[in-house]
Amino acid sequence: MTPTGERVRQAALELFAERGFHGTGIRQLAERAGVSSASLYHYMGTKEDLLVALMTSSLERLVDDAEAAVAGSDDPVGQLGALVRMHVTAHAARPLETRVGDHEVEALSPPAREVVVALRDRYEQVWQRVLAEGQAAGVLDLEHPALARRALLEMCSGVARWFDPAGPLSLAGLADHYVALACRLLGVSRATRRGGADISAERRWILFSAGLR
Amino acid sequence: MTPTGERVRQAALELFAERGFHGTGIRQLAERAGVSSASLYHYMGTKEDLLVALMTSSLERLVDDAEAAVAGSDDPVGQLGALVRMHVTAHAARPLETRVGDHEVEALSPPAREVVVALRDRYEQVWQRVLAEGQAAGVLDLEHPALARRALLEMCSGVARWFDPAGPLSLAGLADHYVALACRLLGVSRATRRGGADISAERRWILFSAGLR
Repeated sequence: MTPTGERVRQAALELFAERGFHGTGIRQLAERAGVSSASLYHYMGTKEDLLVALMTSSLERLVDDAEAAVAGSDDPVGQLGALVRMHVTAHAARPLETRVGDHEVEALSPPAREVVVALRDRYEQVWQRVLAEGQAAGVLDLEHPALARRALLEMCSGVARWFDPAGPLSLAGLADHYVALACRLLGVSRATRRGGADISAERRWILFSAGLR
Repeated sequence: MTPTGERVRQAALELFAERGFHGTGIRQLAERAGVSSASLYHYMGTKEDLLVALMTSSLERLVDDAEAAVAGSDDPVGQLGALVRMHVTAHAARPLETRVGDHEVEALSPPAREVVVALRDRYEQVWQRVLAEGQAAGVLDLEHPALARRALLEMCSGVARWFDPAGPLSLAGLADHYVALACRLLGVSRATRRGGADISAERRWILFSAGLR
């Protein structure tokens, strides 16, 4: 992308996060990006095109990162830990992107919404698969898997609303704490204790750092 | 409030939730409420007055309900269960209110924001107190209480984004599941097992319905 295109994109991200999609005017966008209203269309197409581009690139990155996180391990507990770490880090480090992604789906027209919702579903399916495999392997203890997945994702996404990078907690420390909370929420220690199964070094490390063994 | 005042308020709630505060125009508000733009001011004062009224009444209700929930028990586990049940029910039953309350704080001018943030702080202090008392009594197991409180509240507030009252899960069933998840997240069963303390019938019931004993 050209430097001007990148500036337009950044201005849209900030304004959509601050004022919402409907609350952002073309003139405001042009002013924030330092271009004329007349030339804006050249860089962005319609305002909705810009929202779609922001949302799809953010979701595609999440899908890619989730698939990479899962590919790095064949232990469901290890995969869960990697997913939580990735999701929390992404939401804490890029809060504007995730705020726009979470709040503005309903601002999209039906064809664009379909594309965005399909990507979001792909992302959630990665989580769903890991939870189902963990449940099947007896290392997670889920009474209501779909509800637990939603609760977990909302808990982790919430860091975008309060994490302060200038505060006392580092991003890595934050992610560690959330891996521990996720293990508790999904009954990891109880299930692994009960199963008495062969425990990988990686899972032992997650349980240890989560204070669960 | 007069029926027309109530209609204006409801129109504002819907539009602020759908389009954001900045994305809602006076003309749209008047049209949705079925009044003339000219008479709108009589019912609402400024658009910000209306946002402040919606947010403060929603938060005051949450504060009152939280204090009532806590007053109903002297067992921190019982109080926690009542708080979670109340918060989840409020967010699932009144998603527009909570969406506006969560998303639009930054749209407020500084004096109004101060009032709203003070109410939100009062609400969170009820939770903070219950968590601190539970930790002190050895029935909760919290490594990082402030972080656990935020994670818990975000998890519970998230139901406003996905709960469908027409779906298979009842509001009461949803709240039950969340009480169970909250108990896990805050280490209730582990702590109460370890403490071996005298357990109230109420706490036994919460642990039982949460599948933790």
